[in-house]
Amino acid sequence: MSEIYRASTTAPVNIAVIKYWGKRDPKLNLPTNSSLSVTLAQSDLRTHTTASCASAYPAEDSLLLNGSPQDVSGARTQACFRELRALRKELESKNNGLPKLSELPLKIVSENNFPTAAGLASSAAGFAALVRAIANLYELPSSPTDLSRIARQGSGSACRSLFGGYVGWEQGTAADGSDSKAFQVAPASHWPNMRAVILVVSAAKKGVSSTTGMQTTVATSSLFASRASETVPRRMQEMQKAIQDKDFETFAKVTMMDSNSFHATCLDTYPPIFYLNDVSRAAIKIVESINEAAGKIIAAYTFDAGPNAVVYYLEENEKEVAGLFKSILGEKEGWAGERGQTVTANNEARDKVVVDNAVAVGLLEEGVSRVILTGVGEGPIKIEKSLINEKGEPVS
Amino acid sequence: MSEIYRASTTAPVNIAVIKYWGKRDPKLNLPTNSSLSVTLAQSDLRTHTTASCASAYPAEDSLLLNGSPQDVSGARTQACFRELRALRKELESKNNGLPKLSELPLKIVSENNFPTAAGLASSAAGFAALVRAIANLYELPSSPTDLSRIARQGSGSACRSLFGGYVGWEQGTAADGSDSKAFQVAPASHWPNMRAVILVVSAAKKGVSSTTGMQTTVATSSLFASRASETVPRRMQEMQKAIQDKDFETFAKVTMMDSNSFHATCLDTYPPIFYLNDVSRAAIKIVESINEAAGKIIAAYTFDAGPNAVVYYLEENEKEVAGLFKSILGEKEGWAGERGQTVTANNEARDKVVVDNAVAVGLLEEGVSRVILTGVGEGPIKIEKSLINEKGEPVS
Repeated sequence: MSEIYRASTTAPVNIAVIKYWGKRDPKLNLPTNSSLSVTLAQSDLRTHTTASCASAYPAEDSLLLNGSPQDVSGARTQACFRELRALRKELESKNNGLPKLSELPLKIVSENNFPTAAGLASSAAGFAALVRAIANLYELPSSPTDLSRIARQGSGSACRSLFGGYVGWEQGTAADGSDSKAFQVAPASHWPNMRAVILVVSAAKKGVSSTTGMQTTVATSSLFASRASETVPRRMQEMQKAIQDKDFETFAKVTMMDSNSFHATCLDTYPPIFYLNDVSRAAIKIVESINEAAGKIIAAYTFDAGPNAVVYYLEENEKEVAGLFKSILGEKEGWAGERGQTVTANNEARDKVVVDNAVAVGLLEEGVSRVILTGVGEGPIKIEKSLINEKGEPVS
Repeated sequence: MSEIYRASTTAPVNIAVIKYWGKRDPKLNLPTNSSLSVTLAQSDLRTHTTASCASAYPAEDSLLLNGSPQDVSGARTQACFRELRALRKELESKNNGLPKLSELPLKIVSENNFPTAAGLASSAAGFAALVRAIANLYELPSSPTDLSRIARQGSGSACRSLFGGYVGWEQGTAADGSDSKAFQVAPASHWPNMRAVILVVSAAKKGVSSTTGMQTTVATSSLFASRASETVPRRMQEMQKAIQDKDFETFAKVTMMDSNSFHATCLDTYPPIFYLNDVSRAAIKIVESINEAAGKIIAAYTFDAGPNAVVYYLEENEKEVAGLFKSILGEKEGWAGERGQTVTANNEARDKVVVDNAVAVGLLEEGVSRVILTGVGEGPIKIEKSLINEKGEPVS
């Protein structure tokens, strides 16, 4: 039997604090503005991917995600395969001793440790893991930045999941996308006490897809242009400085304003796109009350293309933020596990916030299906555990 | 006993299709952008006001609204009184034979024929009626345009209620507000078949007041400037042409886009302002489905600073628009009365719309407290019926 080559990695989810919304080139996933995110800890949220190739495999490349075969014929996945194979081919042409892996069919197996249906940014972790795993398989010398250009073509925000910590995505100006790549603003160790609690909202059904939505916004929103050309460039600077300075109040204020700005351009789209619902608004209300009770900004909400709230805070304020939400949502799934069990509310702060917000509290109790406790984390990690056995079969 | 002078008027509500949001001068109520509205029929929604003066009255000016004494010491009401008295004084100084009404205390009695708490634009009708009634009392030769400058100082949008039909409010540029005034784009008779159904949404409580809200938007929204300087000026032109041409599709599209643009700048405010809730979004969804089922735009939603939906349509589409809402909300108050009883649904259109929108239909059933059926109507009307009797006492 022919040899089976295998390599595995994990890759993280990231949640933007300056949002990516709008493509100037849909084919290459080139954005209309730069963006910035926090990479989340992989113990809570990660994709584990094994990439494998062998001459004995069926001729068609394949991808299995959480046990279900995925279509890999789409232009986005194909672009990633093509670019990675080209880099491998380059190595092979320089070194005749290398096996010709670029000519073998790929078999890829992926697993998420979180529910795909939760509306979390699973495609970011997914494409980052796919690209990183194949790069490991091919033993490419490419840097995370190089790989971010490839992952971007799979899913825009995936480029930011090639790094840990605080990560920017430079929009770039080149038509071929060569300068549209991710960069690390700061490693997780620079500001390690950044935490997040995610309130997963049970949505009736998935709204407008982000790919369709963002292009309709670019085409129809009269407010969008000033967001892309003026608001975001200014906020990218403010946010990078806030991270360098570990200035949570600025980080939080810019995060909230940018989430609102993004959703405002969605509402200004024709027909309008709504991702926030009354439960999302209730989460905003509670965060505002938490900050009022604290007398300063200790919590920041942000929303991607869906109703789930991601609330960033610093570990030293866990009682006042995660603890507050636990006092409302203690019955929900997600508080189990070491960290969740130690989260307790600051009773005085809780009383202030809960009493004044009966309607919002009721909406959260009714509309939040589970919580996820997490924090800033590392980039992709090469691991031994393979999702494909030595016979080339998927294992789990 | 001294003579009692009295004059009465009614004045209409107006609902903007290009929204007023933002003041460049809060004291004079000078707006950051022009706006445009449809005046609604007074049979459905009006303020009835009697203005009266007599030397025998208590020295303080007074205002009774729906039986409750109102504070008239505020700068806005005082500005209206002062300007109208000055105009009367000018007449008196030119004609010695005129009684010196400008020196007498005012007693004003007002009644709305609609629930004030419904969150409709009652201040617009209220200040328009107040100014028009006093102008009648003083027998001022002032045109509606002249009076609109005065009513504007009471409540910005009140200036548009001095006219019937389709009414613009020119923002003006003069620092003293002399060119910030209302004008008639077209009388109601030009396009008489414009109808509206208002879905009154039972809100838990009143949100941010519009005066506070709009100034926070001006101060904090980074998208607001381009709305005021670019979007609205373009849409004012498009809307005036659509009205001249009786082009409902353009009228409707600009109406919806402008409502969305206004609410987008509210969401982009810090902290964000939300007037739309899940019930409002359900109304938007149903309007979108009505238009899809019709294969063209026959209904247009718009939302002021609250969750109530105002849906404009043409009389020839009553079955497909008002009738559709009646098939969902037939149990609610507001369908009684001659017009409401004749509203029936187009069954085929209804089936298409209702079946596809179970969630939205449920939200409307649960969240709409009453409906109001109305349409384009006339400006203030001088009437005989007085709310103050010949002894100077309020009657009702």
